Amino acid sequence: MDSAEARRRFAAARVARLATADTDGRPHLVPVVFAVDGDRVWTAVDDVKPKATMHLRRLRNIAANPAVALLADHYQDDDWTALWWARADGTARLLDPADPVAQHARDLLAERYAPYRDAPPPGVVVAIDVVRWSGWAAAD
Amino acid sequence: MDSAEARRRFAAARVARLATADTDGRPHLVPVVFAVDGDRVWTAVDDVKPKATMHLRRLRNIAANPAVALLADHYQDDDWTALWWARADGTARLLDPADPVAQHARDLLAERYAPYRDAPPPGVVVAIDVVRWSGWAAAD
Repeated sequence: MDSAEARRRFAAARVARLATADTDGRPHLVPVVFAVDGDRVWTAVDDVKPKATMHLRRLRNIAANPAVALLADHYQDDDWTALWWARADGTARLLDPADPVAQHARDLLAERYAPYRDAPPPGVVVAIDVVRWSGWAAAD
Repeated sequence: MDSAEARRRFAAARVARLATADTDGRPHLVPVVFAVDGDRVWTAVDDVKPKATMHLRRLRNIAANPAVALLADHYQDDDWTALWWARADGTARLLDPADPVAQHARDLLAERYAPYRDAPPPGVVVAIDVVRWSGWAAAD
């Protein structure tokens, strides 16, 4: 799968998994909802409490080590020829919820996810600059 | 969600995502099919070519840094109260396909996945000793 197709499939997915790692190289993994904006992926933290937010391992990891990977995939038990995945490798940074750019990210997220229209994610926004889109499809 | 429930949900899932990291702490992410056996997770590589196998980044990463994370999750666009995820953090090691223990892993995988009954995964087997099961459910 070429990088344009990997980006297209990733951007159309509804959920992805965000892998970060601490400075000892221990990986951490959580599912995220997201919006793709060119070669940038936005995601946001639902938790509003600053103290709780600073304790989230994904955020501590990104602050210490900005290298991240995001994965969207399709699994189908009865037809392994339909399997595919698409990955975004990149560099993450954290935006304060009050940053004007964070509002742009929340707008894009609200466009994609109905629950965010009523209750925008109040916490830290994560911007991931994608340096590589890659993917695989069993049917290729 | 307690660790027993996280383990139960993870074990019942059909696909998980495996996060590894290289010695620079750069995370890598692929979807995997798997079998849970107590506090061990088994997965295997489909590729039979030894040279190609040694180039797989997940295997190079594990050889250099055994810390891994696996994630299973449920996403539902129309009902965010149904969301959940379950994670296994642990230590991975690689088994040669000819290792007798690798045959036990292939048997468990073939029990769970019909395509593996006709064509068992011929490559390296990955054993992950789970040190922590954790999870989250929106409904909790």
